[in-house]
Amino acid sequence: MHVMAQPAAGIPRRTAPPALLDALRALLAERFSTEQAVREHHGRDESRFDAAPPDGVAFPHTTNEVAAIVAHCAEHATPIIAFGAGTSVEGHVLAVQGGITLDLSQMNRIVAVHAEDLDATVEAGVTCEALNRELRDTGLFFPLEPGANATLGGMAATRASGTNAVRYGTMRENVLALTAVLADTSVVKTGTRARKSSAGYDLTRLLVGSEGTLGIITEVTLRLYPQPEAVSAAVCAFLSVADAVQTVIETIQLGVPVARCELLDATTIRGINRYSKLALRASPHLFLEFHGSPASVKEQAETVQAIATLHGVTGFEWSATPEERSRLWKARHDAYFACVALRPGCRVLSTDVCVPISRLSECIAQTEADLQAAPFPIMLVGHVGDGNFHLWMNIDPANASEVALAESINRRMVELAIAMGGTCSSEHGIGLGKMDFLEHEHASDIALMRTIKRAMDPHNLLNPGKLLRLDA
Amino acid sequence: MHVMAQPAAGIPRRTAPPALLDALRALLAERFSTEQAVREHHGRDESRFDAAPPDGVAFPHTTNEVAAIVAHCAEHATPIIAFGAGTSVEGHVLAVQGGITLDLSQMNRIVAVHAEDLDATVEAGVTCEALNRELRDTGLFFPLEPGANATLGGMAATRASGTNAVRYGTMRENVLALTAVLADTSVVKTGTRARKSSAGYDLTRLLVGSEGTLGIITEVTLRLYPQPEAVSAAVCAFLSVADAVQTVIETIQLGVPVARCELLDATTIRGINRYSKLALRASPHLFLEFHGSPASVKEQAETVQAIATLHGVTGFEWSATPEERSRLWKARHDAYFACVALRPGCRVLSTDVCVPISRLSECIAQTEADLQAAPFPIMLVGHVGDGNFHLWMNIDPANASEVALAESINRRMVELAIAMGGTCSSEHGIGLGKMDFLEHEHASDIALMRTIKRAMDPHNLLNPGKLLRLDA
Repeated sequence: MHVMAQPAAGIPRRTAPPALLDALRALLAERFSTEQAVREHHGRDESRFDAAPPDGVAFPHTTNEVAAIVAHCAEHATPIIAFGAGTSVEGHVLAVQGGITLDLSQMNRIVAVHAEDLDATVEAGVTCEALNRELRDTGLFFPLEPGANATLGGMAATRASGTNAVRYGTMRENVLALTAVLADTSVVKTGTRARKSSAGYDLTRLLVGSEGTLGIITEVTLRLYPQPEAVSAAVCAFLSVADAVQTVIETIQLGVPVARCELLDATTIRGINRYSKLALRASPHLFLEFHGSPASVKEQAETVQAIATLHGVTGFEWSATPEERSRLWKARHDAYFACVALRPGCRVLSTDVCVPISRLSECIAQTEADLQAAPFPIMLVGHVGDGNFHLWMNIDPANASEVALAESINRRMVELAIAMGGTCSSEHGIGLGKMDFLEHEHASDIALMRTIKRAMDPHNLLNPGKLLRLDA
Repeated sequence: MHVMAQPAAGIPRRTAPPALLDALRALLAERFSTEQAVREHHGRDESRFDAAPPDGVAFPHTTNEVAAIVAHCAEHATPIIAFGAGTSVEGHVLAVQGGITLDLSQMNRIVAVHAEDLDATVEAGVTCEALNRELRDTGLFFPLEPGANATLGGMAATRASGTNAVRYGTMRENVLALTAVLADTSVVKTGTRARKSSAGYDLTRLLVGSEGTLGIITEVTLRLYPQPEAVSAAVCAFLSVADAVQTVIETIQLGVPVARCELLDATTIRGINRYSKLALRASPHLFLEFHGSPASVKEQAETVQAIATLHGVTGFEWSATPEERSRLWKARHDAYFACVALRPGCRVLSTDVCVPISRLSECIAQTEADLQAAPFPIMLVGHVGDGNFHLWMNIDPANASEVALAESINRRMVELAIAMGGTCSSEHGIGLGKMDFLEHEHASDIALMRTIKRAMDPHNLLNPGKLLRLDA
């Protein structure tokens, strides 16, 4: 396995000393574990990187316990890694320098639902699916769904989004306030429940997307939305990816408030047909969803159908019932697993970029040329209404030439996106895998990121070795 | 005049030395001025505070010139104050410690309009009205309008919003990227033109709302929106503020995507009737605006009319033509000047708060009791769809008891809003006037704000004495 070699090279390990393990056992009893199976489970995520287990795993129940654990780790100069559901795809949770993992999954209380204010406060370990189960009878929902059933703390920490960010925004727009424990053990509550504020520095958004490197997020206050009165979905087949993308571009430029707008290329369609027992035509598709009043949903759909017709749509099928829609979106969300299933024993290198929408066709077209030539399966899927698309490259990690080719396809796509005014990571974060790209994209302001990291975490205790290289 | 006394007390002046003035003259020639009239113009804003003129005013034309000016000021340990249109209401631009003001109004180029991507990049001195003039033929617009014709750099620096933030968000949501000069003279470009990104710390949103204390914003990239296909406006009279507010609360809870939703109390209506030659009934009103397709606008308006009827609306009048709508919104935007005109020679203490919408009625009701008792005119207006409202108190600054009463009404309203989970400043910022309130609201995280300020501006050169007290 060669995938891990580069990020780990030369990083010193800071192993937790026995006195720290004793102190954490005294604090947490059976909620602190050094068992190998537990450590190994917490040393990996959904990424291509080799596991890097921590020296112990703590399962705190309260923000104050998190602060106490941070205090013990700080006393022993030992790294602290926050862990939610372990669904990150860039190696965020790997204990590459050793240390203690804070598994926040037992902090899973829904603290408050303010239905009349359209907000809820949850502990970091609540998953997006659990929150929506709790909300079912309120007439409200929380729209963001990254493919996996991630924790809301983890989603905040990686600035996640997903299929309906085109309508509802990302975690950047949907976290109103949060509680976090800083490296100096202080507990901060940022933001308020007010919809807008011009009161001081926006520490909420500084912590959202900081990937556990500036603080441990323990609670988040989220915006909720009224469940739409009407929902309809459509599945549209196209002759080419370019036709599908052009349909999306014109839809966005017209201001149609589409709720979801997903591109799936022919390889992806073949994969989900097999994995999810569908029978879609093996050509590029858009999966669309519309939210609103019955009249507005109808109007939106008619507008998009007219645009799609101009671009040679070969099928425009409605999924009107909730069951049909659920089946469709389940298949879309399972597409990643459909990719995994294509080659048992292999691993998926998952990457994404986001570009200004006028460049989306060109960016995808140039990337597709690489895909055609690759000797391993690659799926191209995208939240294209945002200008965002993903590649899933199913590679044999023992095959050095496959690994090298996948990395070079990734690099070319990212460099192209950056050159087009886009970003190296739309919703996966930086983690271990994109630190070079972050330096490239943010050549002028990465020094300021380092200044902030050093000011907030002078001993580099919080998720060291991720997001930023501090030795530059 | 007593208004200024408190914020200025004990602050040392750091007067620009002659060598610095010489260096800036050498750099900028006639674009650097120490004339008294110019200095006095730049030492005041729309706030109640006494003028505090800088020692000189520079008019840079480029980001590099800004960096050169910062370098000279840093060499002489002299404060640097960014200045846009001078429309702030909390004393942001006053040179309370002396120093050099950077008037960015000559940096007024529209750098690029990417109509197909719905974004534009402008220099900091471009005003929101100038940008919309430029966009008129593109089919796009930039929605945010704080009452005054502010510069977009200033709006970014104070995290401004205005009447249609309820639909389109604030500067927090609408700045995609920016260029800024830091205290160490480095030029940073934060963000990208991609709609979403999870690449590194969100420095864009750290600088948005930082009021010139962390960097000088010289360029901003903004989201644009398609001009709505249809627009309609309605003017609704109510028997009480409570009825009007309840109409708004239910509208928001239903998810009606209202574009503007403004409350004006009876005093305000009387003021604008006189100032703008209108003939509205002297009772609380809502001014509403709807954007969308013709069908969706009609549907939204019917929904709101039904809600208003439940709450005893006594008049619901349509403004269908663009001319009528312009007249209406001009009157709304001129309401502040209508307040100023009520008592020539006096000053308006303008303040605002924002609360979770379920508490809006209660917050306004408790505040209204104070208004009834005041011996000077007070207007209550609000962007109530966000839970945000303003008080404009027209006071005689030479009358100590009026000043004290106005400050105490302000304090009670702010403390009430904070106790309700709201914020001390919805869109005016902190400046000089709300530093105590910021400390109260952000008791747990103000220390982190100071840590960041000290890391980014260790010699406290950038707009010192504003937003944060560093001696705490």
